[in-house]
Formats: sequence, C-alpha cells, structure tokens
Amino acid sequence: MKKIRAAIVGYGNIGRYALQALEAAPDFEVAGVVRRSGADNKPAELANYPVVSDIRQLEVVDVAILSTPTRSVEAYAKDILSLGICTVDSFDIHSQITALRSSLDAAAKAGNAVSIISAGWDPGSDSVVRTLLQAIAPKGITYTNFGPGMSMGHTVAVKAIEGVKAALSMTIPTGTGIHRRMVYIEVAEGYDYATVAAAIKADPYFVNDETHVVEVPCVDELLDMGHGVNLTRKGVSGETQNQLFEFNMRINNPALTGQVLVCAARAAMKQQPGCYTMIEIPVIDLLHGDREELIAHLV
Amino acid sequence: MKKIRAAIVGYGNIGRYALQALEAAPDFEVAGVVRRSGADNKPAELANYPVVSDIRQLEVVDVAILSTPTRSVEAYAKDILSLGICTVDSFDIHSQITALRSSLDAAAKAGNAVSIISAGWDPGSDSVVRTLLQAIAPKGITYTNFGPGMSMGHTVAVKAIEGVKAALSMTIPTGTGIHRRMVYIEVAEGYDYATVAAAIKADPYFVNDETHVVEVPCVDELLDMGHGVNLTRKGVSGETQNQLFEFNMRINNPALTGQVLVCAARAAMKQQPGCYTMIEIPVIDLLHGDREELIAHLV
Repeated sequence: MKKIRAAIVGYGNIGRYALQALEAAPDFEVAGVVRRSGADNKPAELANYPVVSDIRQLEVVDVAILSTPTRSVEAYAKDILSLGICTVDSFDIHSQITALRSSLDAAAKAGNAVSIISAGWDPGSDSVVRTLLQAIAPKGITYTNFGPGMSMGHTVAVKAIEGVKAALSMTIPTGTGIHRRMVYIEVAEGYDYATVAAAIKADPYFVNDETHVVEVPCVDELLDMGHGVNLTRKGVSGETQNQLFEFNMRINNPALTGQVLVCAARAAMKQQPGCYTMIEIPVIDLLHGDREELIAHLV
Repeated sequence: MKKIRAAIVGYGNIGRYALQALEAAPDFEVAGVVRRSGADNKPAELANYPVVSDIRQLEVVDVAILSTPTRSVEAYAKDILSLGICTVDSFDIHSQITALRSSLDAAAKAGNAVSIISAGWDPGSDSVVRTLLQAIAPKGITYTNFGPGMSMGHTVAVKAIEGVKAALSMTIPTGTGIHRRMVYIEVAEGYDYATVAAAIKADPYFVNDETHVVEVPCVDELLDMGHGVNLTRKGVSGETQNQLFEFNMRINNPALTGQVLVCAARAAMKQQPGCYTMIEIPVIDLLHGDREELIAHLV
C-alpha cells in the first residue's frame, strides 16, 4: 500500500498531537515538519524526521496539516495549495469560515488540490453532529454547551490586560448555550487585584458573560488540556414534537484536534479539487480501511 | 423553485410518518402513494393525493420512499430504479446491508438513478455517529444501547409462538450493548402461562438474552412508539487514552424513520448514480437550503 505523505506545518501543541496521530495511523507516513526555526533545537520526538523552514524543502508531500495560529491559516494554505499539495486546518473563527472556504476553493482548484478547513472538534466533528441533528429533526433548537475546559481565546485576552502576570480562563457551561467564565490570575507586582479584576470584567471578551476573577498563587498548577461538549437538540420530525438528542464528550483538546486533522488529511485524498468543510464530506472518507468492511461494521 | 416529487411506496406506520415529513418539507411535493390495495378505502389524509397500486400510474416521480417491509425492499427498489426513479429505504437487517448495496448499485447505475439504503435511525443516523466517533478516536470500543422501546422484530417473534394471543417485546438497555427483553403477553384460551413463557425464553430471538415474560390483561394499553439510544465510545486519539463520547436520543420511532427517509430522498437528488449508505453521503446533502448559509450556521 502506498502511504499518504503528510507534512506538519507549525509545531505547537496541535502540531505535536497531530504527529502522534500520524504515527498511530497505518496509512500515513510523516514527510517532515515545517517550522520557522527549521532544524534548530529539534525536539527529541522529531529526531527521525526532516525539520525544515519551508515546505518546498521536503520530498513529496501529499497533504499539509496546518497547525499554525488560526489567523495564519489562509496565507499558508494558499501558498501550499499553489504547489499542488492538499491542506487541512482547524481554522476556528466561526464567522469567517465561509469567506475562507471561498478563498481557498479558488486556490485549491487552481492548484488541482483539495483543502479541508475548520477540521477540529468545534468547528469540526461537532459541526457534523449539529448538521445531522438539524436534518433529522428540522424544526427546533440546538444548544452547544462547552466545557468545563480552558478557552484559549479568552486566556489570551486576559493575559493582554495590564497587571496580569499569568492567567487561565475556564469555560463553564450553565446550559442553553450560556457560559460562565472562571478566570484564574496571578497579579503582577505593583498592581492590585480589584483593579485588574474590574478591567478583565470590562473586556469585550467577558463583558456579556457571568465572569468571576480569582487570584491564585500559581496558575500553572491549574492547567489541564481536558475539555468537554454537551450538544442538545429538541426538535420536530415531520409533525412529531419533542424528539430529544444529546451529544456529550470529555476529551483532551489538542489530542482530538490533532486526530481530526489527520482524518481530514485522509479524506482530502478522496475529494475532487476544491475547498470543503467537514459537513461536506462523507464521514466514511475519514476512515482508513476497506470500504465494504467499514460499511459492514459501522452501518 | 422546482420541488422534488416523491412517491411513498407502502403505506403502513413508516409510510404515514414519511408523508408528514414530506408535507412539512418546503422543497418536496407528494407525487402519490403506492399500495397494494390502490385507492380502495383511501384514508382521509390521502384525500388530495393519487393513491395507486403501481408506481407507473403516477405522473413524474423523482424519488420513491420505500416504506414496505424490509424483506420486500430489494425487489421494489430494483423495479423502480429500472424506471430511472431514485429510491430510499430503511432496510434494517444489518448483516445483509453490503449485499443489498452491491445489488442495488448495479440496478441504480443501469437506471441512471440513485439509491440510498438503510436510511433510518439504526442503521442510519446512528451509523453516521458511529463512523464519526471511530474516526476521531480510532482505537477503542463503541457500544450501542437500545431502548427502552418496543422491538418490532422480537414482538413478531413472540406473536408467532403457540398460545400467544397478543405480545409486546420491550428492549431494555443494561449497558455495554447488552439488553434485557421484557415480554408482555396475553395468553390465548386453553394455554397456560408457564408453558408459553418457557417457549418464548427458548426461542432463538430470546435464548441468549435475559428475558422476562409477564402476563398482562391487555397488551394494547402498553403500546408506545417511543424509543431510545445511548451510544458510547471510549477511545484513543493519537496516543491519548480515555477520550469519552456519548450520543443519546429519546424519540418517536416511526416519526424519526420517516424524517430520515425524507432527508435521504433529498440527498439522493445530489449524488452520482449508484447505491449509497448514509455514511457515504455528506451530511449537508440531507438538508434543504442555501449551501453557504447552512455552512455559516452549522459549521
């Protein structure tokens, strides 16, 4: 069997977990890792792989797994698609997904390649569940409740506030898509807790949510990459009310994102040129193995 | 907008709910109903629709929703596909799905039409969830727990046993895919409970399960078309253990099946000729509406 050669572009948290998922997948081989610092200070787990600063320096890449910050995804994807290499990413700014799709669709078709975007868990696998539930109970309301778990975006926002030395923003679901923010901070020397806490609560990221700011001696001791989702839909099938659906997960956040990216990389090999979100690809394409056997086992 | 013209073939429980789902869908119109008795004793809700005994008597049908008994699906589908009309069904004998798919794939391609099979809730929407979870946590175990709810197959099996006047077999989940059977019966005159109960417990449908047989004065008073599913997976993403997923539903059984059939009928209009299970079609194709808007709303 010819293996799919994947490159990891960007080697932070997600990149490290994507590497583990590639190593565990029987149908992939790691073409290499692309990071700004190239081969300098190569981490031990990359000893056997080429580590370069430009994907052009790697031999034969079928698909690039973009593990860069979300705002860099479009530029990297356009460049890589122009080389005829497929891309997958976990772009997570919900309001900008259709614009990214449109931009990368043109780039993918021009490069005769496939791009699968927003392939994480939300957006990503949750999107597949939301779409399925809307189809099978077309009228009704879906609530996606996140947490308990660390919000990267909110944590970064807190760290940017003057007087914050270290921070962690936890997302706590209180139901019906409403979330409490529990913010744990270390206060920098020369600042007082009350002023810093007020500034956090006034920040646009927090001003509309129930927010509690707690001073702690060491934020690092609270860090945990677990996260959760509780997605519910109560809806109508035909004329029948009160159809109830619930999807729950408790997961390691970057590990799941890394795994979904690898599944999407596999699916990219099976689509026509263009850009897709996960709800536009058949779920069977996420899996390795004989199609008939998968159907016999899973349907 | 040109509406999709759907015929309902077979007008039992599922057919009636499929009609409601068609009437609630903005992009469908009912081409008519096909049943063995034709227009004789036409039920009130069919007053405005053609009711015939052969689909050839209906004008312009894009897709036929097969609501016949599962064992009749293949013959009906082959005939209808040969007319160039798409078919959808909720064929539910798990062990025979790949054989049906292979047979109908040839028929669909010969008729230049599309067939989507096993489009109910299990097999069907549950299959999509199972496939997604296996992709995002490739190592691990999925358990599908059914109920509490009536099992049609088991109820029919009980009714066939000598001395049973009326019966209901309820499926009760006890976890890890293991089920208890609660069988409620009325005993026919001249038979005794103990003998009948022993015969039920010895039947192949029940012999391997924990089965309780309860005599009741009136089975009809216990009938309820609600059903449930609890589907769990504990698995590994990459190298990360203990990723936990759970999908629950509490639903009206034939209403959900009817709705899934209508979604599949819509999706049939968007596939290349051939036969598909639900895990082989993009979930977005199950929905009506503008693709970009659906993506903006659901991804």
